[in-house]
Amino acid sequence: MLTRVKSAVAGFMGGIMTGGSTGGGGNPCSELPLKFPYMRPEFLGLSPDEIECSADHIARPILILKETGRLPWATGYAEVINAGKSALNEDQACCEVVVARRRPVSYCPPSTPSKTPIAKRRSSLPNGEGLGLRMVHSKLGEESEGLVFHYWALFDGHAGSGAAVVASRMLQHHIACQLQVVIEILRNLARLPPTVLGEEPDKCPYLQGDTPGPHRALTRAASLRGAAGAPGSPCTTPPPPRFFTEKKIQHESLVIGAIENAFKEMDAQIEREKQVYNISGGCTALTVVYLLGKLYVGNAGDSRAIIIRNNEIIPMSTEFTPESERQRLQFLGFMQPHLLGNEFTHLEFPRRVQKKEVGKRMLCRDFTMNGWAYKTIEDEDLKFPLIYGEGKKARVLATIGVTRGFGDHDLKVHDSNIYIKPFLSCCPEVKVYNLMQYEHGADDVLVMGTDGLWDVLSNQEVAEAVTTFLTNCDPDDLHRYTMAAQDLVMRARGVLRDRGWRITNERLGSGDDISVFIIPLMYGNRQP
Amino acid sequence: MLTRVKSAVAGFMGGIMTGGSTGGGGNPCSELPLKFPYMRPEFLGLSPDEIECSADHIARPILILKETGRLPWATGYAEVINAGKSALNEDQACCEVVVARRRPVSYCPPSTPSKTPIAKRRSSLPNGEGLGLRMVHSKLGEESEGLVFHYWALFDGHAGSGAAVVASRMLQHHIACQLQVVIEILRNLARLPPTVLGEEPDKCPYLQGDTPGPHRALTRAASLRGAAGAPGSPCTTPPPPRFFTEKKIQHESLVIGAIENAFKEMDAQIEREKQVYNISGGCTALTVVYLLGKLYVGNAGDSRAIIIRNNEIIPMSTEFTPESERQRLQFLGFMQPHLLGNEFTHLEFPRRVQKKEVGKRMLCRDFTMNGWAYKTIEDEDLKFPLIYGEGKKARVLATIGVTRGFGDHDLKVHDSNIYIKPFLSCCPEVKVYNLMQYEHGADDVLVMGTDGLWDVLSNQEVAEAVTTFLTNCDPDDLHRYTMAAQDLVMRARGVLRDRGWRITNERLGSGDDISVFIIPLMYGNRQP
Repeated sequence: MLTRVKSAVAGFMGGIMTGGSTGGGGNPCSELPLKFPYMRPEFLGLSPDEIECSADHIARPILILKETGRLPWATGYAEVINAGKSALNEDQACCEVVVARRRPVSYCPPSTPSKTPIAKRRSSLPNGEGLGLRMVHSKLGEESEGLVFHYWALFDGHAGSGAAVVASRMLQHHIACQLQVVIEILRNLARLPPTVLGEEPDKCPYLQGDTPGPHRALTRAASLRGAAGAPGSPCTTPPPPRFFTEKKIQHESLVIGAIENAFKEMDAQIEREKQVYNISGGCTALTVVYLLGKLYVGNAGDSRAIIIRNNEIIPMSTEFTPESERQRLQFLGFMQPHLLGNEFTHLEFPRRVQKKEVGKRMLCRDFTMNGWAYKTIEDEDLKFPLIYGEGKKARVLATIGVTRGFGDHDLKVHDSNIYIKPFLSCCPEVKVYNLMQYEHGADDVLVMGTDGLWDVLSNQEVAEAVTTFLTNCDPDDLHRYTMAAQDLVMRARGVLRDRGWRITNERLGSGDDISVFIIPLMYGNRQP
Repeated sequence: MLTRVKSAVAGFMGGIMTGGSTGGGGNPCSELPLKFPYMRPEFLGLSPDEIECSADHIARPILILKETGRLPWATGYAEVINAGKSALNEDQACCEVVVARRRPVSYCPPSTPSKTPIAKRRSSLPNGEGLGLRMVHSKLGEESEGLVFHYWALFDGHAGSGAAVVASRMLQHHIACQLQVVIEILRNLARLPPTVLGEEPDKCPYLQGDTPGPHRALTRAASLRGAAGAPGSPCTTPPPPRFFTEKKIQHESLVIGAIENAFKEMDAQIEREKQVYNISGGCTALTVVYLLGKLYVGNAGDSRAIIIRNNEIIPMSTEFTPESERQRLQFLGFMQPHLLGNEFTHLEFPRRVQKKEVGKRMLCRDFTMNGWAYKTIEDEDLKFPLIYGEGKKARVLATIGVTRGFGDHDLKVHDSNIYIKPFLSCCPEVKVYNLMQYEHGADDVLVMGTDGLWDVLSNQEVAEAVTTFLTNCDPDDLHRYTMAAQDLVMRARGVLRDRGWRITNERLGSGDDISVFIIPLMYGNRQP
């Protein structure tokens, strides 16, 4: 994310890869330890030397998977660091096959390298796609095994890489934890989810290290973050006789709800653990969960996912930015003016109002409007607008350029006591794609990219590049999706010329971190 | 609108057409005079006897225009009353060619039948479409004439017809008033609208009868209703030297802003005038404004507009209902819990929670969620949900089935002091269609209908019916759009059989009021 936080929180620009407790992942001013050290995605299998080389802002080497088929579904991945805006690559990525178990099992958090069931499942993956998938699939459906889901995620950090690193290590476990309580219900597709279950059972085993744990009762504060409930594992009771209508909830809605609540719990965990760890900055989150034949794309931020199917583009996410969320933010500022600290106005003007313009009329709009109308300027309107700037330069409270994601709990407007966090949301929009409804060929893919990709390439350009590239590859070459991802990152980064990074037609290349997954969809059709 | 207000405000079910001060337009309990008497659309030219006959809930006669070409663009119109849910037809319609004048002129409100310029323009219309249009067009562009716009509107009332009648008489003048201050800017398409204008000039002449007038300064209360500004007529000042970026606002955005603010002023006028007039109930509003080559479709409620072009369906509005606005309403209830009066919860459950279920877990979602998750039930959850019911039965605060429109200022939850109005919005969504971008044939139309139409016919069924009907008509017959509208209303009402009103395939016909405009688009292409 290129200069998305202007000045409020200083990035750690020097001392790259010096290791130790500040290692790039945290705030250098903090004396707290890091929860996780700075890293590149685990699946890249980079050595410390290679990680250091990857951070060359001049050469900007494109990193790809070392071996073919290392990721599920032969997923392709490529990434490149920014052109100098931050010392480290603040994007993070994750791709795993995760098992949500039905019954509580002993478990250690992922940071501890002991061999627990989940660690075993994950450790089986580097042995190769075929083996890993077969093993998982053969056990899917066994009661003792739980529910398997595939998981891909991109996180785009700002003002430090701490939040992105933590989210890339933990979010999948929050999703597993939320799914764990509805496993039996999801498996029983023949029966709609019951409206009522018995009392809450044992706590989720996946995140026992956390306190107070994700299953606390719904408090007002939790609801503001969006936590809507405290589900436990299913132990259904017979429904009472009913004399009123009852909404029928589909299984799909339970998965969506699980992902939504997992995002909130992820953010709540960061907030809690900032008391004891150095977790710097914030990050957007884009996740894909494949479960029981459907893809669930959850997005909180300005990354993007599209499906390319038979040359057709199907958008699978919408971006959340100060411009796209203007009305939500203005409404909040209007309803809770104290959050604006007497320094900002919830009204939007085309530019700053000048003192000498009081009494004249300026174009203006509030949270109810998409159009503009002239308003007589008052002294109140001299305050700085809550939303200001256009396109990539748009900012909330003159500080931040994204409006959804994790972290940023301490972020304040420069030289003030005005917190940014109340205006940010950790809640994703979840879109569903039913893989079973279509036959997918080898060139039908889902592309996930951070904004570094989409800032310079349109959906159409990405689709054409991927389709052209894949058409020219051997359909049986499992490495083709990684090569296509590398090609995409190359097209978005461009080549270094006298006047900077340039792409096709002499356009400016992206100077931002760029991360791309290319997920072939035909493997989904082969699921049981 | 069929039973959209359950019990909070009693409808006036007896004494149909008894005339006098209650005449169906107002609350029978009120001692205040009506602002306008109950009526059917002026352009139908019905006699009092005909109006009485139109209210036959058994025969349900379909009303159409008496003469061909009485409305601009040979617009077709048809309507039918409900099957007995209210004594009067609570739908209202309006279609006019309106002139927004550049300079203040003497003006009497439309309720006064004196011959003012606007009254003259309107009175020229019954002479026939051709003449009316030619006269308007020949003068378009003359400075003294002002700006001409075409206007179509449907209002669907509930709990009385007062608000719908007032809106059908007044909203076009609020739009004219808002446009009046930007006439010169809109005419000068070669130059973008200036960001700053001089001080506010004289008040808008179109609504001088109103106090305190639509141009009051922006107050907090006005902003809550959505009023964003107080524009006056353009007297541009040279822009100051700028050293900062400035958003470029397009002309189109000024028209959108004018319509948005006109809706807010309409609602504010009803609120003010309820002090001195009997204005019963509330109403949705769907308007189409044709101005300078573009159609602006503004919608606040659950009516719908679609364009049918070359057999393609282009939705021109989205419905606002308790279900589609759930998250906005829940967010408001969460932020301002006092609005729920300690009787309602902002959380949604699939059905009412029972006292014996406290401690168990029930599916639940809050304003952040689209999915569902289990939540342990607490005593707090025994309150009635803010949004309850599904589809056409969904209600806000157990009272009302629509969430946008005018009126309802006094509406309370039955037997309580909880007001509904804070949860309702008068703000429209405005969509734009550029008529100049396409060539339109005689069968390309915009269809506007109240929910009585769309509850029983899908977009596809409406498009097929209209296209089939028009294809079988003489393309030069100006009456064809009225006949097509009549055909649509007939298809939605159906025929009375032993088991009620029935349509194709033995489906239930609509027992609601039904009103339909069919607007041919080729006339728009012929504008200067």
